[in-house]
Amino acid sequence: MRLATVRTLDGATRAVRVEDDRLVDVGAADLGALLADPGWAERAAAASESASHLRGAAYAPVVPRPGKVVCVGLNYRTHIREMGRDLPGHPTLFAKYADALVGATDDVVRPPETDALDWEGELAVVGAPVRRARGADAERAIAGFCVLNDVTCRDWQFRTGEWLQGKTWEATTPLGPYLVTPDELPGGVRPVLPVSTRVDGETVQEDSTGDLLFDPVALVEYVSTVVTLRPGDVISTGTPGGVGHGRTPARYLEVGQTLTTEIGGLGRCENRVVADPGA
Amino acid sequence: MRLATVRTLDGATRAVRVEDDRLVDVGAADLGALLADPGWAERAAAASESASHLRGAAYAPVVPRPGKVVCVGLNYRTHIREMGRDLPGHPTLFAKYADALVGATDDVVRPPETDALDWEGELAVVGAPVRRARGADAERAIAGFCVLNDVTCRDWQFRTGEWLQGKTWEATTPLGPYLVTPDELPGGVRPVLPVSTRVDGETVQEDSTGDLLFDPVALVEYVSTVVTLRPGDVISTGTPGGVGHGRTPARYLEVGQTLTTEIGGLGRCENRVVADPGA
Repeated sequence: MRLATVRTLDGATRAVRVEDDRLVDVGAADLGALLADPGWAERAAAASESASHLRGAAYAPVVPRPGKVVCVGLNYRTHIREMGRDLPGHPTLFAKYADALVGATDDVVRPPETDALDWEGELAVVGAPVRRARGADAERAIAGFCVLNDVTCRDWQFRTGEWLQGKTWEATTPLGPYLVTPDELPGGVRPVLPVSTRVDGETVQEDSTGDLLFDPVALVEYVSTVVTLRPGDVISTGTPGGVGHGRTPARYLEVGQTLTTEIGGLGRCENRVVADPGA
Repeated sequence: MRLATVRTLDGATRAVRVEDDRLVDVGAADLGALLADPGWAERAAAASESASHLRGAAYAPVVPRPGKVVCVGLNYRTHIREMGRDLPGHPTLFAKYADALVGATDDVVRPPETDALDWEGELAVVGAPVRRARGADAERAIAGFCVLNDVTCRDWQFRTGEWLQGKTWEATTPLGPYLVTPDELPGGVRPVLPVSTRVDGETVQEDSTGDLLFDPVALVEYVSTVVTLRPGDVISTGTPGGVGHGRTPARYLEVGQTLTTEIGGLGRCENRVVADPGA
C-alpha cells in the first residue's frame, strides 16, 4: 500500500492511498493524523472514496509535521570502510526540525548564508508508537518507508561539533513522495533497494539499502530506548558515499539545479534548487 | 506577567495567568496555543475569569509540546575560561524532542540504561514567530523566560560525537514553573538573574545569567537565521560550571534525590529523581 499527504486547493492537506490510476481519500487530514489511529492500516486499505478532484495535487511532506525527525550519521558499510574508519558500535543520531521538510516536488531553498549546500539521499522510516521495542515489536513499529534527502549546509554543519545548525535549514529536506508499507518491499522491514541521488541528471550517489550497518529495525530499537516513537515520527537511516563535500574538488548544489533522490520501489523526489525568496 | 500551563483533573491542560493569590484562565488549552495568537499578551493581561478550581493543580511543562527545543552548548564565559577554552565564535546548538519535557514538580525519570545522569540548570527563552530577526525584531520575538534543567545521560551523550542521544531521554527535562514576560525582569530581554542548581539542598551550580556569551537576543538572531521560530518554541541558553560530570570524582543523580533548579524572578523547578516505572 502506498500512502501520501497531498495538498488541497484551499491550502490544507489530505491523506490519500495512491493507486496506479487514482487517489483514494482515507479520511484524515494528513498521514500523521492517519497513523495516530491504531487501526490505520485496515482503515486505509478499506477506504474507497475516490479523491479524483485531487489528481495532480502536489505532494506535501509524507508526514507534514512529525514530532521527531531523527537522522543517522555514517551508516553504509562500504562508505565507512572507504573512508578508512572502523565500524562504529553505536549509531550517531542528530535531529532536524519539521520546518526543514518539503514535499517531493517542492523547491529546495538554498539560503544565501551558505556556500556549501550538499546532498545526502536516504531511506526514511516512518514509525508507529513504541518505547523500548525489541525484535518483532520493533518490526511492527515500522509503518513504512519513503525517500528523504538530508540536504546539509556543510559550512554551518562544521561551525561547531554539533551538526544541528547545518542540518535543519528551513525548506531544505525533501520527504516523499509517498509511504510504502513493508509488505510491498523486498526484504520487508529490512528492505534491500537501490538508492541513488542525481544532480541535473548526473548520478552522484548509488548504493543499496541492504548495505546499512544499523538496519531500520535496529534503529527503531535504539531510538525507542531513548524516547517514545510516536505516530508519524521519522528516522532517516543515513547516506551512502558520493556526497559533494567528499569530492575533489568539492561540489555543492547551485540555484537552478534539479536534485533527484530515488529509491527503487519508493519512487523519487525531484526538487529544484531555488534562491531564498524571503532573504 | 507570569503565565503557565496547568493540568486539569480530566487529564487535559489549561493556560493561566499566575497571580500571587489566584490563577486566571486566559482562554487557551496551553501556553503554546495562547502564544499562537499574535495578540496573546493583551489577551492574557485582559483575562479576568478566575480559575479557582485549578488552585493546587500541577504545572505542566510551560509549553507542553513545543515544535522545537533548541539547546545551546557551553555559553557561560567564566565556565568556558575555567575550562581553559577560547570563547567560541558561534553557538553550539543541539536538539531535544518535546517528549523529554516534564513540569516543574513532576518526577525526573532516571532510565536504567544510564549510569551518569547529570544536571544542567539553564535559562530558557520562549519564542514568538520570526525568521532572520535582527535587533528590535529579535527582542520582540522573546515572549518570556523560564527555568529548564537540561538533564543529560553523559554516557549516552559521549557514545558518538553528536549529543542528541544523551539529551533527549523521555521525561528527564523540567521546564517551568511559569513564563515571565521580559518587562518584569532586570535586564529585560537580556535578563541578569541568579541561576542555581541544588541536589538534595546542596548547591552544585551558581552563576548569573548576565555572564552568557550569546545572550537571548543573539540566540534568537542566530537560530532564526537557520529556521523559523514558531510560537512556543524554546531556546535553552546553556549551563554554567558545576555539572556533576566535571567534578573529581564525578557525581551523578541517583533515584530518590531531589533536583532543584532556580532562577531569581523565574521561580524554581523541584523534581524528584525516580526509577523508570515502565522499564
